Amino acid sequence: MLPHNFDNIKIVLASQSPRRAELLKNLGLNFTTCAAQVDETINLGLPHNQIVQTIALKKVKAVQPTFPPDTLIIGGDTIVCCGEQIFGKPKTPQEATYMLQCLSNRYHSVMSSVCVCYKGSFWLDYDTAYIHFLPLSQQDIAYYTDTYAPYDKAGAYGIQEWIGMRAIDKIEGSFYTVMGFPTHLLCNILEKIKL
Amino acid sequence: MLPHNFDNIKIVLASQSPRRAELLKNLGLNFTTCAAQVDETINLGLPHNQIVQTIALKKVKAVQPTFPPDTLIIGGDTIVCCGEQIFGKPKTPQEATYMLQCLSNRYHSVMSSVCVCYKGSFWLDYDTAYIHFLPLSQQDIAYYTDTYAPYDKAGAYGIQEWIGMRAIDKIEGSFYTVMGFPTHLLCNILEKIKL
Repeated sequence: MLPHNFDNIKIVLASQSPRRAELLKNLGLNFTTCAAQVDETINLGLPHNQIVQTIALKKVKAVQPTFPPDTLIIGGDTIVCCGEQIFGKPKTPQEATYMLQCLSNRYHSVMSSVCVCYKGSFWLDYDTAYIHFLPLSQQDIAYYTDTYAPYDKAGAYGIQEWIGMRAIDKIEGSFYTVMGFPTHLLCNILEKIKL
Repeated sequence: MLPHNFDNIKIVLASQSPRRAELLKNLGLNFTTCAAQVDETINLGLPHNQIVQTIALKKVKAVQPTFPPDTLIIGGDTIVCCGEQIFGKPKTPQEATYMLQCLSNRYHSVMSSVCVCYKGSFWLDYDTAYIHFLPLSQQDIAYYTDTYAPYDKAGAYGIQEWIGMRAIDKIEGSFYTVMGFPTHLLCNILEKIKL
């Protein structure tokens, strides 16, 4: 996937996530963002990979009617799974603290999806990564939730922030999947598209 | 390791690497950099962990006499091991291309060390991560070596750049170790130091 092949294509990122926008920019792509307003309620009856792919598809479908069909629309979603629990974005400081206490001193998984739509065709994929957190003290958690913004992040943390540098000693999988966007899968999809 | 505990300590990073400086900054630490001029020739007779720790120690010792003993000096080094070969920084486009061709479609390991000196005591540690590259085409390699700066990076690539987002589908270990600085080990060391 060489980014200059997409120089003449209008690309829209159907996401409000500043991390996804940063990653797409670092891939060398020119795009605009269009926030997709979709219901992100997690249907716990579905397998995890279906949950995360369904929401990415919803995001792309929500903005698709707004643009001409030769617009390339990209969406994504991320969930954090810790034991039997699925974590989306925390709504309160208490919820953020609870999530980080759960993640401390153990492994959890992060599942991120990508959806692309171009000229009426859809591509959908997902990736899983496993993350190990070292023990987080109450002080660590309080410092992080006070100083950073856990509320727009599934699982209440950003691996690219202080907490990821301080306390994640091991990941198994793609860093960018943990950050919220499986960039290697997006590149695979973009390579398959006949422009 | 809460960064404000170090607010009254003079910290020096004995490294020219912009990645190490970025990571230290993102940890919330205030520091100045002082480029350490040391011989980075790899002694192939030594075990890999000794190679990478010895060079980090050399860097710290090279700048130590310049500062008062209550200065906290931090150094690091990184090597890339691919099969039987050890890759430092490539010196020519041909060498960068060769390294990336070797790394394509296989696993390699990255070993990064950290050395800290404070009031005459030294702390030294290292970490290893394993990285899998998807197949890199000639076009991918040419685009990367032409567009980015592989010459200041061990193994001729930066995981935080286009090539890492495009072609690394899996790491086993710490992302920051791959980027060149095992930040979780640095935090462990900083927690042990009696200020």
